[in-house]
Amino acid sequence: MVTINDIANRLGISISTVSKGLNGASDISEDLRQLVLDTAIEMGYQSKRMKNQTTKKLCIFIENMEYTSQNQFGYDLILGFKQAAYRRGWDVTLYPATPAFQKKEKYDTYMLKNHFSGAFIVGFTLSDPWMEQFRHTAVPTVLFDNYIPGNPNICYVGTSSHEGISMAIDHLFQLGHRKIAFLNGFPHSMIAEQRRQAYFNFMASHNLPTSEALATNGYHAKNSASCYIRSFLQEGATAILCASDLIAAEAVIECRSLGQSIPGDISVVGYDDLPVSAQLTPPLTTIRQNRLELGKCAYSALEILIDHVPVSHILLHPQLIVRSSTACPGHNSLP
Amino acid sequence: MVTINDIANRLGISISTVSKGLNGASDISEDLRQLVLDTAIEMGYQSKRMKNQTTKKLCIFIENMEYTSQNQFGYDLILGFKQAAYRRGWDVTLYPATPAFQKKEKYDTYMLKNHFSGAFIVGFTLSDPWMEQFRHTAVPTVLFDNYIPGNPNICYVGTSSHEGISMAIDHLFQLGHRKIAFLNGFPHSMIAEQRRQAYFNFMASHNLPTSEALATNGYHAKNSASCYIRSFLQEGATAILCASDLIAAEAVIECRSLGQSIPGDISVVGYDDLPVSAQLTPPLTTIRQNRLELGKCAYSALEILIDHVPVSHILLHPQLIVRSSTACPGHNSLP
Repeated sequence: MVTINDIANRLGISISTVSKGLNGASDISEDLRQLVLDTAIEMGYQSKRMKNQTTKKLCIFIENMEYTSQNQFGYDLILGFKQAAYRRGWDVTLYPATPAFQKKEKYDTYMLKNHFSGAFIVGFTLSDPWMEQFRHTAVPTVLFDNYIPGNPNICYVGTSSHEGISMAIDHLFQLGHRKIAFLNGFPHSMIAEQRRQAYFNFMASHNLPTSEALATNGYHAKNSASCYIRSFLQEGATAILCASDLIAAEAVIECRSLGQSIPGDISVVGYDDLPVSAQLTPPLTTIRQNRLELGKCAYSALEILIDHVPVSHILLHPQLIVRSSTACPGHNSLP
Repeated sequence: MVTINDIANRLGISISTVSKGLNGASDISEDLRQLVLDTAIEMGYQSKRMKNQTTKKLCIFIENMEYTSQNQFGYDLILGFKQAAYRRGWDVTLYPATPAFQKKEKYDTYMLKNHFSGAFIVGFTLSDPWMEQFRHTAVPTVLFDNYIPGNPNICYVGTSSHEGISMAIDHLFQLGHRKIAFLNGFPHSMIAEQRRQAYFNFMASHNLPTSEALATNGYHAKNSASCYIRSFLQEGATAILCASDLIAAEAVIECRSLGQSIPGDISVVGYDDLPVSAQLTPPLTTIRQNRLELGKCAYSALEILIDHVPVSHILLHPQLIVRSSTACPGHNSLP
């Protein structure tokens, strides 16, 4: 077991200085404090407070995702994680991790200073500053919808993108659709890339036509629908697969404003099965992600990593929910 | 809850006939018995014996894999599964499932008749008769190293092939190797196909030369080494990545018989980290699969499926174990 003495010997400084560094005292320099923390992490030091603490602490870092109302994707995800963690006696802190915050604090340092045993990372993009640090972190860390190969302390939890996209395309294909457009989400995202690849793979395996004009990266925003729907229709698309229910809702509005009826002229498929998708007009055909169970799986993955088992992926099957926004192909009336 | 009466009504036969079908009585025809069982499964019937049984039963079906001695791949895999299952009060039956047996019995029927709540499937190839049935099975089923998309009752457990192959190629690349041959395992296997793709992907991402002559499908047998090693050397390979430690052991023998020293002339990398790999001369650099933990994860996956959560993948990170069969490239003296 590494002691405070070992850290002092390694750095050639006094025990009291190490102690100040670990406890955040203000009378040592920021550089020295960082060096003490980095060395403590490298040597595998655990503070007495961590070892003896009666409250075991986990952290959720969240970004780019809403979670305060039941209609939002993050709500059940966070709830499932907390439910599972509380049941096992953990205290869970939720923290919005902006890029500015990530730049200011090293991930491992933050976790050690705050006595967290592990974290669940939600909504990060590929360009988030901590993503690079996760490659070498010593802290058990579960990423929602992100994958870091080669680090035994990191696990990816999510829903199989390949299955989700294939279920949607199979459903549309069986209805008779041949020109299927794909309105993807956020571009700097692993999941958007997985889904894009899956779209091209499954279209090819059904011998269906694809082109860059039929598969575009939008954002979770109104303007993606208004940017692309017209050109999808001009390309002759009779169905639009969207990367979220919110994008799909905007796509429906945009199609209507172009004089197209859903599903008479155009079929629309969403993704996620948020509560709102059943209440839209028409109720949305979508790919369900079981968010409560994803949250619980994320907790289980963290528990497994904390037990030193190098779990790499825990994925759930998605589920096709057929409602009324899909039907046999009509004829969209744009040229 | 579906009753024996519901099955009788659905089929338009008497309750006593249904009961005979379910209990394997000999005075009804085999066709009728099968119809009763198929209908019971389709309707989600659970026998009283299943519901009330004090012993909860799981089954392991195993094929193409040795498991009776600690030196064999299956030993720890089965042990880990049994340890985890026994701890939760399950009784585990291990059954060798030959293709002939699979052809004789439908999977779901066998499980229902024998009151198994779920199964762990080990060593099956893509051509095994039950593989097609797994697409639609209603029984919670965990496949080792096999993946069936789209069925919420099926989960794939294994070690990430992409990471394993990338770790091996990175290691050889950093030593200075550029011509790296790949001696793959069993051809009719999902894992062999994953590893083959990973090999071509990672060679390409390092801008290394590949050809069909450098990547061959062998078998877990002596003759694969003797078939291919000479041509690898003639192609100018300075390192050979093998799909198992047993193949690597044969590759070492074959290289020596061709006058090559390991690792002076040729580096050899194994896969699995079986106990024997540390005892070979030279001790083998290899990719470890944590078999005990894989077995425990397989049990956890089955427990999750039995709780009606549609888990799809649980994968572990592999680990690179560097021993003495790899070094900087020498010059193989063939041809």
